[in-house]
Amino acid sequence: MCVQPAEHGDLALPTGDAYREYLGELVAEGLLVPMGVRGVYGRGRDFERVIVRFDEYVARASAELAPEVLRFPPLFNRSDYRRIDHIHNFPDLMGSVHTFTGGELEHREMLGKFERGEDWSRNLAPAEVMMTPAICYPLYPTLAGGTLPEGGRRVDLQGFAFRHEPSDDPARMQIFRMHEVVRLGLPGEALEHRDYWLARGGELLRAVGLHATPVVANDPFFGRGGKVQKAMQREQSLKYEFVVPICSAEKPTAVGSCNYHLDHFGAAFDIRSHDGSTAHSACVGFGLERVALALFRAHGLAIGAWPRDVRHVLALD
Amino acid sequence: MCVQPAEHGDLALPTGDAYREYLGELVAEGLLVPMGVRGVYGRGRDFERVIVRFDEYVARASAELAPEVLRFPPLFNRSDYRRIDHIHNFPDLMGSVHTFTGGELEHREMLGKFERGEDWSRNLAPAEVMMTPAICYPLYPTLAGGTLPEGGRRVDLQGFAFRHEPSDDPARMQIFRMHEVVRLGLPGEALEHRDYWLARGGELLRAVGLHATPVVANDPFFGRGGKVQKAMQREQSLKYEFVVPICSAEKPTAVGSCNYHLDHFGAAFDIRSHDGSTAHSACVGFGLERVALALFRAHGLAIGAWPRDVRHVLALD
Repeated sequence: MCVQPAEHGDLALPTGDAYREYLGELVAEGLLVPMGVRGVYGRGRDFERVIVRFDEYVARASAELAPEVLRFPPLFNRSDYRRIDHIHNFPDLMGSVHTFTGGELEHREMLGKFERGEDWSRNLAPAEVMMTPAICYPLYPTLAGGTLPEGGRRVDLQGFAFRHEPSDDPARMQIFRMHEVVRLGLPGEALEHRDYWLARGGELLRAVGLHATPVVANDPFFGRGGKVQKAMQREQSLKYEFVVPICSAEKPTAVGSCNYHLDHFGAAFDIRSHDGSTAHSACVGFGLERVALALFRAHGLAIGAWPRDVRHVLALD
Repeated sequence: MCVQPAEHGDLALPTGDAYREYLGELVAEGLLVPMGVRGVYGRGRDFERVIVRFDEYVARASAELAPEVLRFPPLFNRSDYRRIDHIHNFPDLMGSVHTFTGGELEHREMLGKFERGEDWSRNLAPAEVMMTPAICYPLYPTLAGGTLPEGGRRVDLQGFAFRHEPSDDPARMQIFRMHEVVRLGLPGEALEHRDYWLARGGELLRAVGLHATPVVANDPFFGRGGKVQKAMQREQSLKYEFVVPICSAEKPTAVGSCNYHLDHFGAAFDIRSHDGSTAHSACVGFGLERVALALFRAHGLAIGAWPRDVRHVLALD
């Protein structure tokens, strides 16, 4: 599954000084702005600029495949969430949006709790939406019950994903953007897409000075039961990550991944290939904030001093 | 307050055919993609392109004032949320993010409810974050307890805001982007900023063929008590909106607003001007999705057929 496209395997997250040190440098330079919650930051002008330019760079590469282009907001339908198994596999990363649906009486009751410092969140009701856990999730329900054209579909996506995962590692944000290219179709088409991007993704990263190694990886499935799923995912080589050292050479960070979902989403949303079989899917995803963090780490905190060829490729001049 | 920068006053929202008709046209053209929740849509290639280009156009105008540039994610700190009065004034629009913090035992309990179709949302705990109700909210806490330089500060912002407000009006989305320019400083500096943008904002909109009339407006304060606040806000002319007919000539839609917050945020976060007085603030905000909807309404659903001067101004050629 492409659920968590930027996970570094089974390694426990070190919260060592190297993470806090880099975070401190980024904050001192105004590249990230603390918001009082671990893993939630404002982005300064240059940090955002690098993200926008890398995003455009990926979009140009993606455009070579003439994909459809869609942009989903950071929220998706709660009833679609129920059709996938995120609540089984990644409950600890979930973001469920709740709101107030009462009248004036209920409002006074909630305000009473608020003012007494009590838990007022129980006075809220679940809204129709969940935070988007992976930016390709909202795509599949829009194809539900449908049949793909011959050759399948390619879709270029970009947007915010949420993971509740407070951390001092600047690369482990709770809310971050991904640029993805998804392919739905026959198993061979999905695999071809995954393999194409395994090569192309590495090329794109190398051209900006990031020597990303593709490694077999797994998503952070929850609990003891999750161990089996992790092992199965690895055994079938369903997930590859492009890893780059950011704060640690021993524990490099995934800045992108290539994922083959088998028929996971096709089955969940009854999407069929033109021959009537359940659609398979694959995606490549680049973690835009992580790429920016890797670039600032590799080339320094001042964009003006980056190597000329990197600035040229990213149109930063 | 700048809380709800795109509200059309006290008028009840009509859910007439004109709204559903335009929504239907947008969907048929692939400009918006339904996600099964009223007011939550995917954006098609051309819809997004117009948003990006209008956003850049506002950024160029904002750059004339040499502001700082910051980008906040769609989430902000729950403890900062507690320092403003959103829960008092706009509880019905709130988005509170909840997550699962239990272990395997609690997970099994929650899954049991999930599988029996019961309410599992009570098994979640409030996360450290709330959905951002207005994109300048996350800015003020970053300045908390500080003193502004002489001349105050100008900050250019862009990002997603959330309002729980399900509707068939395509212009009343639950999750949408704003581009804002905020000024903090002495009362006269805040007012000057508001008045500057009241003129400049109208100019920018007219240059893309939107003949936006600025009107005195108010935020949608909750409940009976809110009526007094609405009247006070209007009486003091704290909020002006640029309104444009999209689906209805009688009930035009606000595509932007200019707001003078008095010392609301300065007091909540103890931000002081260089003379030691509590900082005042003002902002201009453009609702990017609403502007796009107004543009597609005014010039047609095919960008290629838009007037040449509009395409030129927005660099759409």
